[in-house]
Amino acid sequence: MTPTQFPDGMAFVQGRYVPIAEAAIPITDWGFLRSDATYDVVTVWDGAFFRLEAHLERFLHSCQRWRLDPGLNAQQITEVLSQCVRLSGLRSSYVEMICTRGQPAWGSRDPRQAVNQFYAFAVPYVWIANAEQRDQGLHLKISEVQRIPSTSVDPRAKNYHWNDLTMGLLDALDAGADSVLLVDAQGNVVEGPGFNVFCLRHGALITPDAGMLEGITRRTVIEIAQSRGMTPQLRPLPADELRHADEVFITTSGGGILPVTRVDQCQIGDGRPGPITRQLIQTYWDWHQNPAYSLAIDYSR
Amino acid sequence: MTPTQFPDGMAFVQGRYVPIAEAAIPITDWGFLRSDATYDVVTVWDGAFFRLEAHLERFLHSCQRWRLDPGLNAQQITEVLSQCVRLSGLRSSYVEMICTRGQPAWGSRDPRQAVNQFYAFAVPYVWIANAEQRDQGLHLKISEVQRIPSTSVDPRAKNYHWNDLTMGLLDALDAGADSVLLVDAQGNVVEGPGFNVFCLRHGALITPDAGMLEGITRRTVIEIAQSRGMTPQLRPLPADELRHADEVFITTSGGGILPVTRVDQCQIGDGRPGPITRQLIQTYWDWHQNPAYSLAIDYSR
Repeated sequence: MTPTQFPDGMAFVQGRYVPIAEAAIPITDWGFLRSDATYDVVTVWDGAFFRLEAHLERFLHSCQRWRLDPGLNAQQITEVLSQCVRLSGLRSSYVEMICTRGQPAWGSRDPRQAVNQFYAFAVPYVWIANAEQRDQGLHLKISEVQRIPSTSVDPRAKNYHWNDLTMGLLDALDAGADSVLLVDAQGNVVEGPGFNVFCLRHGALITPDAGMLEGITRRTVIEIAQSRGMTPQLRPLPADELRHADEVFITTSGGGILPVTRVDQCQIGDGRPGPITRQLIQTYWDWHQNPAYSLAIDYSR
Repeated sequence: MTPTQFPDGMAFVQGRYVPIAEAAIPITDWGFLRSDATYDVVTVWDGAFFRLEAHLERFLHSCQRWRLDPGLNAQQITEVLSQCVRLSGLRSSYVEMICTRGQPAWGSRDPRQAVNQFYAFAVPYVWIANAEQRDQGLHLKISEVQRIPSTSVDPRAKNYHWNDLTMGLLDALDAGADSVLLVDAQGNVVEGPGFNVFCLRHGALITPDAGMLEGITRRTVIEIAQSRGMTPQLRPLPADELRHADEVFITTSGGGILPVTRVDQCQIGDGRPGPITRQLIQTYWDWHQNPAYSLAIDYSR
């Protein structure tokens, strides 16, 4: 193993690898000025990508959905991401790939005339819950802010349209919660900032089926449950049903499966992470050793 | 007058003035990664800002709405914007001020811990319609994409959540139209990418009252109409009413009042810019000479 050279992270910007602190995008890129961009996040754990193939497939689908061309195929993107991780020396990393619209000649309003840009960076692994929260379970607030509906922005193609999530998060933090869940116009919970939600009720595993990103960690939980003989219910999840669930957890690339022990003023179960949740967490991390989902990075190159 | 030094534009980035081509924001700024930012655009015409006070007031309101702090007051922002224009030497300019969330320590998910950032740039004046379109009138397509609703993102506080506008625009351009108008869930037209819409029908001037940005050019048109004894109707505007209007125009800082002569397959009026529209355009440009709305830039400093 080579010594860690850039423990804060490395980025790929305009064809060059640069330390994360120097990574920047032109202020005139529509990826910023119109949030006209897509992205995906894959993690590296113990020196290996987890489910990179699924993330690449979704990233390329998102690009297609927004009519963006990263100019690189899956293999080339894999090489760039691997190089970012390799140069950083990080054994556990949060790795983001991005495609922006770029910009057409100044004054043009035609997105078709823009030259799309590909960016990437690898930084230290991100836990969206700290060690105490992972042990005790998170406290979530259900927001009154409605998630941007599918009739406006397709939530299955990743995007940076997070104002609703951010405003809901600020309210939740002010109220003393750890994070937030947004609802749809019918009052069903859909997703939080960077995570999907599941609950267990009367033995059934339930997660929303529409209005949210179809997370790879969400998919992993569905597959784990199926491998254990469970049949997850993908359906609308009313806020009140979640509040009165037996177990609740969220799923994210930023920490995997994270237990939730309070939703608004309602304690979930006995107030501690539930037994099924704990089993799923165990299996989630076990699956990181499965070569079918794992791609080791060669740090010696 | 000093010679034009940076005709492509100048930017203010992290406390320094730099040519626009060098202006960049950190890739890790949540202003990009979460589109957690606000902005405003004011124009300079013939060496003077037009309605700068109104734009500054709205910008500071937008910042407050999103809990962003630009760290500068209206007077200080005026100085930065003036300096960008001055250094560029541009007599007609499109001037953008931006406040981003910045970023908290890596791994933190708390927007309250971020240090917000102020950016600005002055570039050549932008016309969102070219000379021929301004003369002949624009062809707009009414999109099936719904504008992000107010229940998700407050449209009165400016934001870069434009995916819906961009996807609608791409469809419209493919269909041979010049630009696009989005609707709300009830099928009323609300706004297009960077502009408001008005129509004249049976002598009444009508513009939507909800679901869209309250543009300063829109406000100017309302004030011009009132000064001429008209009483503009601010109310929901069904798509079909617009298609069958006598005159249609859009309003934007990127060109003021721009005539529309076709909406979907419907010709508006006799297919040429209408008489009231032309009078409003004349008055709009006349008002640029009004010292109440105009702030001259001292280029000699």
